[in-house]
Amino acid sequence: MKAEDRFVEKLRESLGADPGDPYGIGDDAAVLPRAAGDLVITTDLLVEAVDFAPGEDPEAIGRRAVAVNASDIAAMGAHPEQFLLAIGLPSPLAGEYALALARGAAERGRELGARLVGGDLSRAREVFAAVTMWGRMEDEAPPLRRSGSAAGDAVFLSGWPGRAAAGLWLAAHPGSRVDAGVRDELSAALRDPQPRVTLGAALARERLATAAIDVSDGLGVDAGRLARASRVRLVLEAEALPVSPALAAGARSAGCDPLGWILSGGDDYELLFTAPPNAATAVERAARAAGVPVHRIGRVETGEGAFLAAGGERRDVSGAGHDHLENPA
Amino acid sequence: MKAEDRFVEKLRESLGADPGDPYGIGDDAAVLPRAAGDLVITTDLLVEAVDFAPGEDPEAIGRRAVAVNASDIAAMGAHPEQFLLAIGLPSPLAGEYALALARGAAERGRELGARLVGGDLSRAREVFAAVTMWGRMEDEAPPLRRSGSAAGDAVFLSGWPGRAAAGLWLAAHPGSRVDAGVRDELSAALRDPQPRVTLGAALARERLATAAIDVSDGLGVDAGRLARASRVRLVLEAEALPVSPALAAGARSAGCDPLGWILSGGDDYELLFTAPPNAATAVERAARAAGVPVHRIGRVETGEGAFLAAGGERRDVSGAGHDHLENPA
Repeated sequence: MKAEDRFVEKLRESLGADPGDPYGIGDDAAVLPRAAGDLVITTDLLVEAVDFAPGEDPEAIGRRAVAVNASDIAAMGAHPEQFLLAIGLPSPLAGEYALALARGAAERGRELGARLVGGDLSRAREVFAAVTMWGRMEDEAPPLRRSGSAAGDAVFLSGWPGRAAAGLWLAAHPGSRVDAGVRDELSAALRDPQPRVTLGAALARERLATAAIDVSDGLGVDAGRLARASRVRLVLEAEALPVSPALAAGARSAGCDPLGWILSGGDDYELLFTAPPNAATAVERAARAAGVPVHRIGRVETGEGAFLAAGGERRDVSGAGHDHLENPA
Repeated sequence: MKAEDRFVEKLRESLGADPGDPYGIGDDAAVLPRAAGDLVITTDLLVEAVDFAPGEDPEAIGRRAVAVNASDIAAMGAHPEQFLLAIGLPSPLAGEYALALARGAAERGRELGARLVGGDLSRAREVFAAVTMWGRMEDEAPPLRRSGSAAGDAVFLSGWPGRAAAGLWLAAHPGSRVDAGVRDELSAALRDPQPRVTLGAALARERLATAAIDVSDGLGVDAGRLARASRVRLVLEAEALPVSPALAAGARSAGCDPLGWILSGGDDYELLFTAPPNAATAVERAARAAGVPVHRIGRVETGEGAFLAAGGERRDVSGAGHDHLENPA
């Protein structure tokens, strides 16, 4: 039996999979169960030394690879359903390492309602994981796109962005003085992000949002993307941006402005969306039901770009963000 | 605008894509068009120095990445419909190289009826491409699995396997003496494989095959996989294995047995399938209609493993094949 076949057998065992299951792992391709509701599908790469440190725990990498894909599914308003996992890794890691990564992915998938149904495994010089995940819209709801926003809409943001960037700063500065609770919260935001699936699905099902995007590369650049797709301008109020107590504590320790982490930090996996102002009460209700805070942070105007308004001044923040292709400055 | 956004814009332009197209590139996830028929989905990685040489033309890499995924879709009996492309590559290659790879993928997709609808792009130390492709079954046909074969079935094989391995040998031995036509045919089999989509779809639609797999890692190991999934034994007749004139010429030049390339060469992307003996005429008709030769090469027995029968002797060939995880012997 070839190494890839042995891997698939071990993985099946480790997941307690039924070999006769028609939707299980192990054929040339996976079969999608038929059901009502549009399907949406996404793929996201995690690459060693770009998205995770060379020594990182493989289960944590697998968990994160699944979570970041689920965030894209959430931003479309769908429920994660199944996923494929392709792993590249140096030969010496092919055994336990790959299994641990796949186990982490499968476990995180289960937590989010999505099942591992296939994948690929190849030798490579560095470790990388490519997850492809699909999800289904509830109740015939149309998918949430980036392009439906209109002048006059309000801008909303879920959760507490900036924390992953603060967690990254803390990891690079282990001697910095912050409470253990703060450190734990900021590290967890980086290591094990929480995609906003329940909120996204509610925004789509109740037709509340006119446009949505997940904030993966920093609020500035992702607001710019939503603005460009919708051919509008987003104006964000600096005073309305949600600074969590942990983020504020991290910023004090680093001696920096927490807004910098919010605008250009990346890896938040919060939802940025627009909705008519009269939908604000319904948005609040959906947020409460999902157990996720949602803040109203600005408004949509005619024009282009994403601007931060502070003290009567505006500056373009659509270029402020993490760039997966260029080296950090 | 970030490098990834610029890439997506340039790619859209280069593909002549309509930005208003609801199934086009550019949202958090792609939306699958709804239609009748089961969907099947697969992912396959191509990694530098494993699946292609470091200096290889990026368009050719993109073409091959799409073709090998389409072969998995063909082995399930479905028609390729859409695909995602995730590319990892060193920063200096991020511009033209990535575009050329994506262009090659999009072009090969068009030839096979599948559309590029999204993806991801990341820095990496080496080049790799992960394609995820899905396809749809025709006329409510059930997908062809590896597991439906039964004792008494006949074993069939499409096309002319072994040629890609011969092409690889020729590439490594540029001074070897073979006709230009032979060299071209064997190189093309390696560089630009032809997935058997029309044949696979006919086998499923007409309910001809009881089980199918695409031959990507050598006939021996893939026959072993089909046997294991179906809990049967496959017996292949050495005399019935199709040796194309070009393969024979390549083998003469290399001074080796062409059966070695057929059994353990890999990268053939032919279809290996089983069907009841009384379906042989219908299989021949489907093969003619698809324009692909199909040879009857053996039979299914009770037992396990894949054996080659030659001169009254049998040997297990299920371990003979290319291993993507281990180094070549």
